[in-house]
Amino acid sequence: MDVFTAIKERRSCRNFLPEPVKKEDIQRILEAAVWAPSPLNTQPWEFIVITKQDTKEELFSEARRCIKWGLETSGWKWLGSYGAEFLQSAPVIIAVIGDPEKTGIDAFQEEGTVAYQHACAAAIQNMHLAAYALGLGSLWFTFFDRKEVRRILSIDRQKTPIALICIGKPAGEPIKTARKDVKEKITYIK
Amino acid sequence: MDVFTAIKERRSCRNFLPEPVKKEDIQRILEAAVWAPSPLNTQPWEFIVITKQDTKEELFSEARRCIKWGLETSGWKWLGSYGAEFLQSAPVIIAVIGDPEKTGIDAFQEEGTVAYQHACAAAIQNMHLAAYALGLGSLWFTFFDRKEVRRILSIDRQKTPIALICIGKPAGEPIKTARKDVKEKITYIK
Repeated sequence: MDVFTAIKERRSCRNFLPEPVKKEDIQRILEAAVWAPSPLNTQPWEFIVITKQDTKEELFSEARRCIKWGLETSGWKWLGSYGAEFLQSAPVIIAVIGDPEKTGIDAFQEEGTVAYQHACAAAIQNMHLAAYALGLGSLWFTFFDRKEVRRILSIDRQKTPIALICIGKPAGEPIKTARKDVKEKITYIK
Repeated sequence: MDVFTAIKERRSCRNFLPEPVKKEDIQRILEAAVWAPSPLNTQPWEFIVITKQDTKEELFSEARRCIKWGLETSGWKWLGSYGAEFLQSAPVIIAVIGDPEKTGIDAFQEEGTVAYQHACAAAIQNMHLAAYALGLGSLWFTFFDRKEVRRILSIDRQKTPIALICIGKPAGEPIKTARKDVKEKITYIK
């Protein structure tokens, strides 16, 4: 698939068919992830491939708890009808974990260490594009408390759960969200 | 260009030819950027397209200052020979700016607001892939103090300079950095 097509047509998928994802597709998605750039080529990412239903249910419970908390804290009313059932129904969830020790000069900067997270986000975008090119839907999910996800997935305290990426055959066409005209986003210094 | 080819073959480019980048190529790169996913589709990115040599020189000076500081602070000896001349020679630099107000539920979480930065990083990865597909080289540069880049580019204090993306025709073949075997990065929960 052409790279511009993948970039433009990929959308967040929230409804999945139960059909399992082929091992070789998961492999291709993760190989795409690791070709992302990272500060000093530190490759700060790790992946947990989750197909066990019990673990998906635990992640779903944590998302439900977080949504309830979010509804109370933010006052965002739409959260009241936000289900996150895709965590139960996606045939595979890939947790992307970042290692703050594998970063750039930001390790010494006062704003704190964040470049390793940027690299993980670039890897995640590669995963979405690869999944779409393979005919799969994917969702970038971050509605969780990191401490809880660390506990559920037995992740070291020093590492950062960046996102849960839900992947599977899409059930129906994902909603085609629009974008603002790019012109509104650009300033020139000529 | 096939999306997997772009993902795998793209590399950081540090040597550029002086030839200007076509307006329509810059446009396509920025259009690719904005199709990245973002929390609640907030589209938290802004872009400053810099072709003015004086501004590039100011960014170069800031990078030099930051490298000197980094050498003293980190003890990373290789920084002593790190020049960052690509900031002077790249025909165009695109500064990617993030808006912390445009984020997800992390606005309320104790770890602080970072999802908008992840979205910007995904947009940057799209930019790299688009540039590569157009026959251009690109570099993700973050070796700067945010306050200084805000000052040089007249960016609001509330917004976050995420990266400077150098773009141009590559002078020679970029170094093909390797990646660890993806198997080392994967755990399974079946």
